[in-house]
Amino acid sequence: MGSIQNQKPDNGFSGTIKPLDPEEFRRQGHLVIDFLADYYKSVEKYPVRSQVEPGYLKKRMPESAPYEAEPIEDILRDVQKDIVPGITHWQSPNYFAYFPASGSIAGFLGEVLGTGFNIVGFNWMSSPAATELETIVMDWLGKMLDLPSEFLFSGGGGGVLQGTTCEAILCTLVAARDQMLKKIGRENINKLVVYGSDQTHSALQKAAQIAGINPENFRAVATKRADAFGLTADALRATIESDIESGLVPLFLCATIGTTSSTAVDPLGPLCDVAEEYGVWVHVDAAYAGSICICPEYRHFLDGIEKAHSFSFNAHKWFLTTLDCCCLWVKDPGALIKALSTYPEYLRNKASETKQVVDYKDWQITLSRRFRSLKLWLVIRSYGIANLRKFLRSHVKMAKNFEGLIGMDKRFEVVVPRNFATVCFRISPIEISGNHQMVTKEDAANNFNAKLLESINESGKIYMTHAVIGGVYVMRFAVGASLTENKHVIWAWKVVQEHANALLTSS
Amino acid sequence: MGSIQNQKPDNGFSGTIKPLDPEEFRRQGHLVIDFLADYYKSVEKYPVRSQVEPGYLKKRMPESAPYEAEPIEDILRDVQKDIVPGITHWQSPNYFAYFPASGSIAGFLGEVLGTGFNIVGFNWMSSPAATELETIVMDWLGKMLDLPSEFLFSGGGGGVLQGTTCEAILCTLVAARDQMLKKIGRENINKLVVYGSDQTHSALQKAAQIAGINPENFRAVATKRADAFGLTADALRATIESDIESGLVPLFLCATIGTTSSTAVDPLGPLCDVAEEYGVWVHVDAAYAGSICICPEYRHFLDGIEKAHSFSFNAHKWFLTTLDCCCLWVKDPGALIKALSTYPEYLRNKASETKQVVDYKDWQITLSRRFRSLKLWLVIRSYGIANLRKFLRSHVKMAKNFEGLIGMDKRFEVVVPRNFATVCFRISPIEISGNHQMVTKEDAANNFNAKLLESINESGKIYMTHAVIGGVYVMRFAVGASLTENKHVIWAWKVVQEHANALLTSS
Repeated sequence: MGSIQNQKPDNGFSGTIKPLDPEEFRRQGHLVIDFLADYYKSVEKYPVRSQVEPGYLKKRMPESAPYEAEPIEDILRDVQKDIVPGITHWQSPNYFAYFPASGSIAGFLGEVLGTGFNIVGFNWMSSPAATELETIVMDWLGKMLDLPSEFLFSGGGGGVLQGTTCEAILCTLVAARDQMLKKIGRENINKLVVYGSDQTHSALQKAAQIAGINPENFRAVATKRADAFGLTADALRATIESDIESGLVPLFLCATIGTTSSTAVDPLGPLCDVAEEYGVWVHVDAAYAGSICICPEYRHFLDGIEKAHSFSFNAHKWFLTTLDCCCLWVKDPGALIKALSTYPEYLRNKASETKQVVDYKDWQITLSRRFRSLKLWLVIRSYGIANLRKFLRSHVKMAKNFEGLIGMDKRFEVVVPRNFATVCFRISPIEISGNHQMVTKEDAANNFNAKLLESINESGKIYMTHAVIGGVYVMRFAVGASLTENKHVIWAWKVVQEHANALLTSS
Repeated sequence: MGSIQNQKPDNGFSGTIKPLDPEEFRRQGHLVIDFLADYYKSVEKYPVRSQVEPGYLKKRMPESAPYEAEPIEDILRDVQKDIVPGITHWQSPNYFAYFPASGSIAGFLGEVLGTGFNIVGFNWMSSPAATELETIVMDWLGKMLDLPSEFLFSGGGGGVLQGTTCEAILCTLVAARDQMLKKIGRENINKLVVYGSDQTHSALQKAAQIAGINPENFRAVATKRADAFGLTADALRATIESDIESGLVPLFLCATIGTTSSTAVDPLGPLCDVAEEYGVWVHVDAAYAGSICICPEYRHFLDGIEKAHSFSFNAHKWFLTTLDCCCLWVKDPGALIKALSTYPEYLRNKASETKQVVDYKDWQITLSRRFRSLKLWLVIRSYGIANLRKFLRSHVKMAKNFEGLIGMDKRFEVVVPRNFATVCFRISPIEISGNHQMVTKEDAANNFNAKLLESINESGKIYMTHAVIGGVYVMRFAVGASLTENKHVIWAWKVVQEHANALLTSS
């Protein structure tokens, strides 16, 4: 060992960068925090929907990576100059599109802490705190939602943080698939059928594609206005029975609490009863509306959940937690683990062997996983149940106010009943000039509302998106951005009216 | 509108929290940055592998979520008191386990900026900057790796940031599967065969499980010490031919540059030639070793890549980018898009319709996606190609030094040739006392080395993990943590020797 020990310890390494120097970390970290604080301060002044043209950034960037290092100050200047104009400002108080992503200081800081620790938490051993905090927080949250105890670790089930609902659905679908194939034989994989409604999120179809379900066996059962676009038990039963008659095997139902288009709610109880009869796994996707079920007056939307197999909602939508954070609970973790576990030699360790611990790698698609529970833990502790409820209710109240404003302008109509904090509305066909038959009148209204929405979004003043529900084009006004206050809602309505006035006058 | 407008704008909302108040964000943000800077300053003093017992955190946490808000100062105190002891310190300079996750200031800040903007970048429109920066950075990085132009956007292919290699493999496997099923008919899904070696990462087997590949059709082709545990073209050919004889359909090969156990390298050129002959999709997994291929003297490990279909490496392993960040390139994005795209009404927009833009939702499993390119962009700009190369080479140099130290102690042996910055070594069987036959001597050595490793890890001084390669239990010394300097390597060797001395004396 002599020759090495006689050298100066770092001889030959002196030219190397110090990528985690604590004082430089501190200095640059403060710069970036200030950058973001200033961003939030001024985010209202930016056009909400980015106004750049496709290819804008290519023109501003070199073709190849820089050979030499550049200081953080230059990079932050470029973020402001080149990146910010290309951002659609999801954190703007005037953002009412899709479902907003409610950021928060606590959610942000939880992510920052997790990023700082930068652990790769595939199993318990790789950082016990990451696994254990996740099991604890998922039980906390399950209790906040009044989930049946079978979904909690304390009741034999358990929760896991996935990135998104797509992953939650894929994992549960694969668990259901393998359970069924074990019974009926793998040669029957092409007979398996997956059910949703025509309002179900595309994540279900995509998960089915990935899991190798025959695309012909994907059922988007039609819903009707009369049922408020919920999937009825009768429609489900009829579809299942027809499939069975054709020799197919019903596998999986995804029921939705708060659909993406119109926040419709599928009736869990009756659907689960039908599913049970035919041995179908029921996953409940409450991606959007799950959050508000922590308020007792909304909990009834989850009635029937006791008969489902799995349940998920996105804390990154309406629960102050930054992207990505999908909370998934299952009654039978064993089904997930059977379908998703691998145990290569290099991961073997005493804690796993003795089965005293949860190894979350077997509950999800990927091996490596971030320390996501920190952000959920910070959100819950920083605000507490009381404030979280107040915050969610304030969004509903704002949406109600917006609905009230619509009601006072006879040219507009609310197209479907509002369940939560999203309002689907349009200018009514009666207002659209021209002498149309009924069908063309509806078409004309659809075209007009599409044009109106585009003119509003182009202005950059507010941002909404659209849906087509039962053939009707609607504008969706989704309250949920964390900076939105009632004054922004009132202003948004003025913007809608101004653009409607201009367009109605010109047409 | 009168009655609403006569109210004070926020009447009825005054009790609500302000979860994104910019000045409070600034204050708390600085606190957390200081917390992390202090953490890096002192990380060396913590036991590297966490020393807590299963269930430790449950005892310290309340059973239910708090009803009232708690101040950030209390939460940070609990992070220090309750979470830090349960962390296995991947950022410690004494971390040599698995493959380290090389954090950096730039990677951290890129993640922080992306978290702050908190966009949900599923398509171009949802934030053009996120998509465009990703295409630009992926082309930069592709050029740094000297990838054939067909993998770059500028050459008709393209790159995408996935979370992990598991996702990259699953996406490409599903693309290959659907391409093949279109040719041979979906009824033949159970005939598809997936190939790797017995050294291939478990991600391949898991992806195959998820994609609905018949588990009986997963081939972990045996490798041999004589081939340095690389998968040979002959072995692949023999396996494929035997499968064809059995009426099966070869589908997908995952070749590895730098296996997890021993950083073995599969010979891409010959393997791709065989694969081409049989119409097999070749994915190249360079999760660990891809990074160092930006150094010209290592680029030869990728020779043959021009004949592969897809290629991925993890920037979160050895490229200073925080978890998660897997870089995937494909020659034919159309194959991915065909297998993974959905286009629901509410996502329709002008930019996507005119096909002028990339919509990355169709290149991956999930719809929602983080703004991951920021961190890669910050890493490349903050350090530049020159420093990145220097940094990677410094790790190789440290690993070489460690190897040199092993070589000077006759009791130890390096078990497989070192390709990169990971050394697989053990106490040689000759040193293990007792009068054993050859086979039992090897068994005794395996047991002894396992015991030695556990005693080292239990000490908390350094952390290494193990592998079993060709029946031989080895300790893996993986240099890659960003704070590691040569002095830590020298010290680590002392720790190994001390524990070996103690154990050899006692046995």
